[in-house]
Amino acid sequence: MFEKPAGVRDYLPEAVAKLRSIEFRVLECMRRWGYSEIRTPTLEYYDTVGAASSTSDSKLFKLLDRNGTTLVMRSDVTAPIARVVASLLKDRPLPIRLSYHANVFRAMEEEAGRDAEFYQTGVELVGDATADADAEVVALAIASLSAAGVRRFKIALGHVGFLNGFFREMLNDRPQAQTALKERLLARDHAGYRQEIADLMLDPAIRNKLGDLLRLRGGEEIFAQARLLTFDPLAGEALAHLREVWEVLKAYGASERVMLDLTMIGDFSYYTGMTFEGYADGHGFPVASGGRYDNLLMQFGRPAPATGFALKTNRILEVTDREPPEAPRRILVAYCAERREEALRRAGELRAQLSGAVMVETRRCDRPDVGAPTAAADADGFDEVIEFF
Amino acid sequence: MFEKPAGVRDYLPEAVAKLRSIEFRVLECMRRWGYSEIRTPTLEYYDTVGAASSTSDSKLFKLLDRNGTTLVMRSDVTAPIARVVASLLKDRPLPIRLSYHANVFRAMEEEAGRDAEFYQTGVELVGDATADADAEVVALAIASLSAAGVRRFKIALGHVGFLNGFFREMLNDRPQAQTALKERLLARDHAGYRQEIADLMLDPAIRNKLGDLLRLRGGEEIFAQARLLTFDPLAGEALAHLREVWEVLKAYGASERVMLDLTMIGDFSYYTGMTFEGYADGHGFPVASGGRYDNLLMQFGRPAPATGFALKTNRILEVTDREPPEAPRRILVAYCAERREEALRRAGELRAQLSGAVMVETRRCDRPDVGAPTAAADADGFDEVIEFF
Repeated sequence: MFEKPAGVRDYLPEAVAKLRSIEFRVLECMRRWGYSEIRTPTLEYYDTVGAASSTSDSKLFKLLDRNGTTLVMRSDVTAPIARVVASLLKDRPLPIRLSYHANVFRAMEEEAGRDAEFYQTGVELVGDATADADAEVVALAIASLSAAGVRRFKIALGHVGFLNGFFREMLNDRPQAQTALKERLLARDHAGYRQEIADLMLDPAIRNKLGDLLRLRGGEEIFAQARLLTFDPLAGEALAHLREVWEVLKAYGASERVMLDLTMIGDFSYYTGMTFEGYADGHGFPVASGGRYDNLLMQFGRPAPATGFALKTNRILEVTDREPPEAPRRILVAYCAERREEALRRAGELRAQLSGAVMVETRRCDRPDVGAPTAAADADGFDEVIEFF
Repeated sequence: MFEKPAGVRDYLPEAVAKLRSIEFRVLECMRRWGYSEIRTPTLEYYDTVGAASSTSDSKLFKLLDRNGTTLVMRSDVTAPIARVVASLLKDRPLPIRLSYHANVFRAMEEEAGRDAEFYQTGVELVGDATADADAEVVALAIASLSAAGVRRFKIALGHVGFLNGFFREMLNDRPQAQTALKERLLARDHAGYRQEIADLMLDPAIRNKLGDLLRLRGGEEIFAQARLLTFDPLAGEALAHLREVWEVLKAYGASERVMLDLTMIGDFSYYTGMTFEGYADGHGFPVASGGRYDNLLMQFGRPAPATGFALKTNRILEVTDREPPEAPRRILVAYCAERREEALRRAGELRAQLSGAVMVETRRCDRPDVGAPTAAADADGFDEVIEFF
C-alpha cells in the first residue's frame, strides 16, 4: 500500500552496516593509494554533465529547475569529477587523484531487474597518459575488491583502440557493419556476432579473421595471436600499450588476477583506450568497471588524459565473503520514574566507558499506557537488561 | 562556463574530510544511544511520502516516472522512515530507534541563499509517548552536537499543544486570526506579531495576554508564568508534559543547555507536541531541530507515537570548533621504467605498513611527454619523495 517507487531500495540496519563496512574499507584503501574523496551534487545540468555522462538519454532521470533548464540526477560520477577538475580544481597541477562513494541513478533499469538507484565507489586519475597510470587503476581495483571482501574474482582487460583499428582494417568501407559487430560485442552476444559475420558478404580471409577475434581471450599468449590478426597501426599501438600495462601489472604482482579479453567493449562511450571489468567467481555481472577516457576533460575546457574505475558497490554487497560487522552488544537500562536519575546516569556511564560496538537503550517501564511495551525486553533481543525499580 | 545548478555544491577533499568526521562521530554517538542507521531511497512517491513530508509543495523537487506517476526527491527523512517502520519493519516490536545520515532536497531555497541539497543526520524514536522519550531525543541532540564539535550552543524547547490551547482560549471564534499570529511566530517576526495583535479588535485583557506570550522565553520560571496566562486544558497538559521533559533533562544533567521558548512553532506541520531547536552561539540559524509527531505513523497504517530530530549537518560544518582531521602524510614514490618493480614494491610496503592517515602515490617520471609532470613534486605538497632512478 505505501510502497516506494520501482527500482529503489530501503536498507535496513544490517544491510547498512555491511554497506558502510565496504564503503569505509574501500575508501581507506583508495586513500592509501593517494586518492582523496570528493563529493559532487546529485543534480547536474543536462546539457553539460548529463550529455558528457554517456548514459543513454532514455536512462537519465530528468527534471526542470524553476528557470526551465533541464537537470539530471547524476548517472555516473566520472563526468561530474571532470567538471570539477576543469573548474574548482583548474589551478591544481596534474596528476590529480580523486575518489568517491556516491549513489547514481539510471531510469528504466528496473525492467532488467536492476536498481534505478545504486552505489558506486571509484577513483579517477587525471593527467597521466602512461601505461603505469592504467595499470595503477587496475591494480587499485584489485586491491579495492579485496578490501571489500570479494575473495575470488578476475579482471578482464581490453582496449577500445585495438577493436577500432582491427575493424577499420577488416571493414574499412563498411562503417555500419563495424557498428553492428561492435554492438554484438558490447552485448557479449558472440552467437549473434558470428551470425552477423555470416550474413555480411565477405572475403573468406576477412571472415575468418573476424571470427578469430572471439578467441582473443586468455593470458599473455594473446598478445602474439592478436598481432598476427591485424596490421592496422592503431591496433598495433593499442597492443603495445596494453602489453606495457601488463608488464606494470606484473610489477605490481597483480597479473595473475588479470586476463586479456580483446573482444571487450567498455560500457561507456567516452572510453578511448584500455578498458577493464572485474568479475566475481560464479557471478555473470561485473562488480567493477573502468578504463581510459582521454577526451572527456576536453569537453570541460581542460584537456587532459584520464583513467579510472568504479566498483558496483551494491553487487559487491551480494558477493562479498566478508561477514557483516559484529552485531553491537545491546544493553537495556529499564527504570521507573523514582529511580530515573540513577538509571540515566548509569546509561551515560556505560555509553562513555564501554568500547567496541555497543548500544545502550533506556526505557521507562512503569507506564505501559504511554506506548512503550516493557517487561519482555529480552524478546527484543537485548544482551543484557539492567533494572532500576 | 561549466557550472553546476544553483543551490548545489561540490565538496573538495578538505570539506569532505570534515563532513565525514562529523558524520562518523555523530552516527557513533547515536549508536551508543541505541539507534541503528538505516537508509531510504532518494526518490519517493509524491502522493504518500511527499505529501506526508510537510515540505511545502513548491519546494519539492518533482519528476515523473515512466508510468506518469509523480515522484519527489526526499525533502526530509522522517516521512520515509515512517513508511519503513509501517512496512518493512511492521513486525518489529516498538519502541524502534533508527538513525540516518542523508542528503535532502528543497527547491527554491537558493533564493534565500540556502542550499537546495544539504545533509541531515538524525534519529527517530518510534513507539514511546513518554516525556522520557522526548527528553531522550533532546539529550541525544545535545550529545550529538557536542560529538560534532559544536561547543557553545543552546536548545530552545517549546510545545505545539501549548500554543494551540492558548490561541484557542484567546481567539476561539477567530481561526484566521490564530493562523495569522502563528505564521508570525513561525517566521520569528515578533514585531509583526505585535502589529497583528494591535490590528485585531480585541478585549484589552486578551490583547495583553497575547502580548505577554512573547515573554515566555527563559528558564524554569517560565512554567509558572505560562500557567497564569491560560486555563485551557490542552495548554495545561502541554505544560505538564513539558515540565516532565524538563525534569528528565535535569536527570540527564542536560538542562543547563536548554531554555524554554513557548513562542516557538516547529518547522514541520506534523509536529504534535514538544518541539525544539538547537542554536550555536553567534549564529542566527538553527543547527538542529526536532519534535514529537504522534500522527504521522498513522498515515502509513501503523499508528504510533514518535519523536526525533535532525542535525543540519552543513550548518554544523560552518560552526564546528573541531579542527579538520589531520591532513594525511603524502609520500611520492617516483621511478623510471627500469626500477619500476622495486619502486612499486616499496610503495606497496609503505601502504601496508604505515599506520594513520597516509597517502602513497607513485609516478613514472622518465616520460614527461605522456602527461605526468614530474620533478617539481615538492611543489605538489608531498611530505616525502622517494626516488628510484
